Amino acid sequence: MFDSAKLPQDMDKKSFHDLEPQLREALLSAQLEAVEKKAFSIMILVDGLDGAGKGEAVARLYDWMDARHLTCNAYGDPMDEARMRPPLWRYWRDLPAKGETAIVFGSWYQQALRDRIYDKIDDAEFNHQMARIRRFEEMLANEGVLLLKFWFLLPKEDQEKRLKQIKKKNAARHVLADWATLKNHAKATDVGEQIILETSKGHAPWFVIPSQNSDYRDAAIGQTLADSIRLKLEDGQHQAVSAPAVVSGLPHRTAVDAIDLTASVSKSDYEEEREKLQQRLSDLSDTKDFAKKGMILVFQGNDAAGKGGAIRRVIRPLDPRIYRVHPISAPSDEEKARPYLWRFWRRMPARGHIAIFDRSWYERVLVERVEGYASHDDWLRAYNEINDFEAELTKFGYVVCKFWLAISAEEQLRRFKAREETVYKQHKITDDDWRNRLKWDDYAVAAGDMIDRTSTHYAPWTLVSAENKRHARLTVLRTICEKVEEAL
Amino acid sequence: MFDSAKLPQDMDKKSFHDLEPQLREALLSAQLEAVEKKAFSIMILVDGLDGAGKGEAVARLYDWMDARHLTCNAYGDPMDEARMRPPLWRYWRDLPAKGETAIVFGSWYQQALRDRIYDKIDDAEFNHQMARIRRFEEMLANEGVLLLKFWFLLPKEDQEKRLKQIKKKNAARHVLADWATLKNHAKATDVGEQIILETSKGHAPWFVIPSQNSDYRDAAIGQTLADSIRLKLEDGQHQAVSAPAVVSGLPHRTAVDAIDLTASVSKSDYEEEREKLQQRLSDLSDTKDFAKKGMILVFQGNDAAGKGGAIRRVIRPLDPRIYRVHPISAPSDEEKARPYLWRFWRRMPARGHIAIFDRSWYERVLVERVEGYASHDDWLRAYNEINDFEAELTKFGYVVCKFWLAISAEEQLRRFKAREETVYKQHKITDDDWRNRLKWDDYAVAAGDMIDRTSTHYAPWTLVSAENKRHARLTVLRTICEKVEEAL
Repeated sequence: MFDSAKLPQDMDKKSFHDLEPQLREALLSAQLEAVEKKAFSIMILVDGLDGAGKGEAVARLYDWMDARHLTCNAYGDPMDEARMRPPLWRYWRDLPAKGETAIVFGSWYQQALRDRIYDKIDDAEFNHQMARIRRFEEMLANEGVLLLKFWFLLPKEDQEKRLKQIKKKNAARHVLADWATLKNHAKATDVGEQIILETSKGHAPWFVIPSQNSDYRDAAIGQTLADSIRLKLEDGQHQAVSAPAVVSGLPHRTAVDAIDLTASVSKSDYEEEREKLQQRLSDLSDTKDFAKKGMILVFQGNDAAGKGGAIRRVIRPLDPRIYRVHPISAPSDEEKARPYLWRFWRRMPARGHIAIFDRSWYERVLVERVEGYASHDDWLRAYNEINDFEAELTKFGYVVCKFWLAISAEEQLRRFKAREETVYKQHKITDDDWRNRLKWDDYAVAAGDMIDRTSTHYAPWTLVSAENKRHARLTVLRTICEKVEEAL
Repeated sequence: MFDSAKLPQDMDKKSFHDLEPQLREALLSAQLEAVEKKAFSIMILVDGLDGAGKGEAVARLYDWMDARHLTCNAYGDPMDEARMRPPLWRYWRDLPAKGETAIVFGSWYQQALRDRIYDKIDDAEFNHQMARIRRFEEMLANEGVLLLKFWFLLPKEDQEKRLKQIKKKNAARHVLADWATLKNHAKATDVGEQIILETSKGHAPWFVIPSQNSDYRDAAIGQTLADSIRLKLEDGQHQAVSAPAVVSGLPHRTAVDAIDLTASVSKSDYEEEREKLQQRLSDLSDTKDFAKKGMILVFQGNDAAGKGGAIRRVIRPLDPRIYRVHPISAPSDEEKARPYLWRFWRRMPARGHIAIFDRSWYERVLVERVEGYASHDDWLRAYNEINDFEAELTKFGYVVCKFWLAISAEEQLRRFKAREETVYKQHKITDDDWRNRLKWDDYAVAAGDMIDRTSTHYAPWTLVSAENKRHARLTVLRTICEKVEEAL
């Protein structure tokens, strides 16, 4: 999840200084309008890893906003009055009035987060806690509170560096939460992803903030805040349904942008390894253990990235009775008359079988989003629906592998032209392909968001550099073998 | 929960025959319009106790509706194809196309229901399953499916009778689900209530159907179905937010209507028992165990039912340092600027203390509903919000007692007049009281719904006959003593 947010996001000093005045103006004017109209309360949750600069970011908000209508509440272990009352009491006590903004450090997520990291509670109890929180936040939103939740993300190396700096400057100043420190980095990141998956709702969205670059971090928060307040001021009852990975107006590198396209394999190496991998796959698919499971393969990628060729290399070693390839294009009438996942459920293979999807349910958040076939609300909710869908599949026992095959725009152009020039390849290139190509950037954003929001721990995406077809095919074969071996 | 639904609802043959033609007409015309427009799919879940007549009710739907567009699917233990695929697959397979109606016997609730009754899963896992189902149903609703869920309810005696009849008629015909039979009646009812609490949403409401009288049962289902289809046809995207306990157009006895108002206590018996109970309460409140808990008392009831008098008898034996009485009238400016539960959270007592509410958060679903101060959506969602709120309170350790003090309209009139005639009581009667009295029936419906929807196993309502003040006061004192003893 949130692969993009784990990438360093660059913002040089000059860009930030150019951006800052208009950002401050947008934020302050939105805040003051909310104050004047006593329109709604604003609650800002600040969570995530230590050393990511939560305190610094909030200090900047104090600079940018009208501090008379801004309160910052930090909740550590409950004391005195709060210990004598139910856990939520202290948050209720400090609930801001309409027009006021409260920043919440140490939110109602802290207890469950910590308990899960230390294995004091199991998954079921954790989910139960998330459900309680979800209902609490739903109530707040229904009562008109604008609730924004920021999760500060930092790779382990960067966290280490920052923690050292903090220690050097002043060892006593900063009291670190025990769970949020280096030692628990991996676990905290996992549980954080679960929290975000379970509790990011339109009325109470999580925004994942890459925190390596402090200017980028603060600009992302400020902009999100300004946009959200403005939207709610204009839209009355309704809040942002969107929890965009991409903050409007800020440059953003996605996980898809970061794929290294130079990887390549020589022909002879390729032949040798392909044969080995195909044999391994054949053996694996022939085991009794595999017969108790089954597999779902999903192929998505840029047009002409080589999905079909990769699929052919996968099926070659397989018994034709155990797999089926499903090319997905426009839905039939029967399919249109039902929820969009129906066409994929009906193709789910029996235990021990393999379903291969050449394009898939992900078209909902790719072509349907970009071309406007699905409404904004519809494709936004699809991320969670797809995660739920794949949770059902993996829980049942299917091995699920999802491949994004990436090529450069230049390589795509070469392949399109080659297709036009070769008679037996002409059926593979249509006007649609050229039209889609014009929207290259839109598709790139959609693909980046898709990876961020649907690369779950139970069904992660594999990003495949497909500039070199041999490299792509080997990566696909190797990944499948590894995933099946892991599962058996 | 659903106390009204447990009451026998009477409907004589003549009323039913008078009602049936218009009900059929409404249902059929709504169905055919949905068919013709291919407007949306309709899924009807049929769950609840065996012997309640689920089969009979569905047979009647076949009579009333156009059977060409109606399918009935019964799901027992999965077979063949279904066993080889994830559990939800068979429900997806049979998903009706737009315009079509499917009746689902043995829904996606069955597995968790059974597992919980047999203690194969704990509460946390059960709640996790409910969360999965909630997301599944939310997705269906977002995709436009009209999803209606009926829970058939039958008191144990009636179930026993019906099962005997069925056995007599034909032992082999009816295969009973093991969990749903007599032996597990209490447990099944409990788990059923949990299911309904957790998964009744505006977009996928549960309707609890009292099934003692088969005509009433079928009329309630038919009418709900007709109303819901009609509403969705007219309202496009939006579905009924309401899951009314009272089915429109049908007579309905509520739990409040069923309170026996003849109960009475003589003066001498009263004095003796009151003193004993007050002593017992004083002793209980003085224990170390009580100091670790605390108590929340809620008093609601008809105007002039004697809330104040009952409260005075409760506080007399208590140490004034440990309790506080909160008379609730119009909210302050500060309170109006925040979610409505804020004014109650701020009054939550420290551990070991007692908060007594003379009127309470329940005004949201009483006066605010009846007088239109809260919108339909707002008071409807309040039931669940209040249940969540009280779950937080009881989980923390407070003993929560809620009293509904009931008097007849005639007795109220006598008391109103007495207040006007007695100088030192005149402050207790206002124009508001007379105005409210004119809406006696509306308040009765609101009170009935409130009891049905907020009498949870962790914070049940105590219905108090208050026609005789002495009886009411003793009932209150006795209930408090018992609840505290239970909790210590």
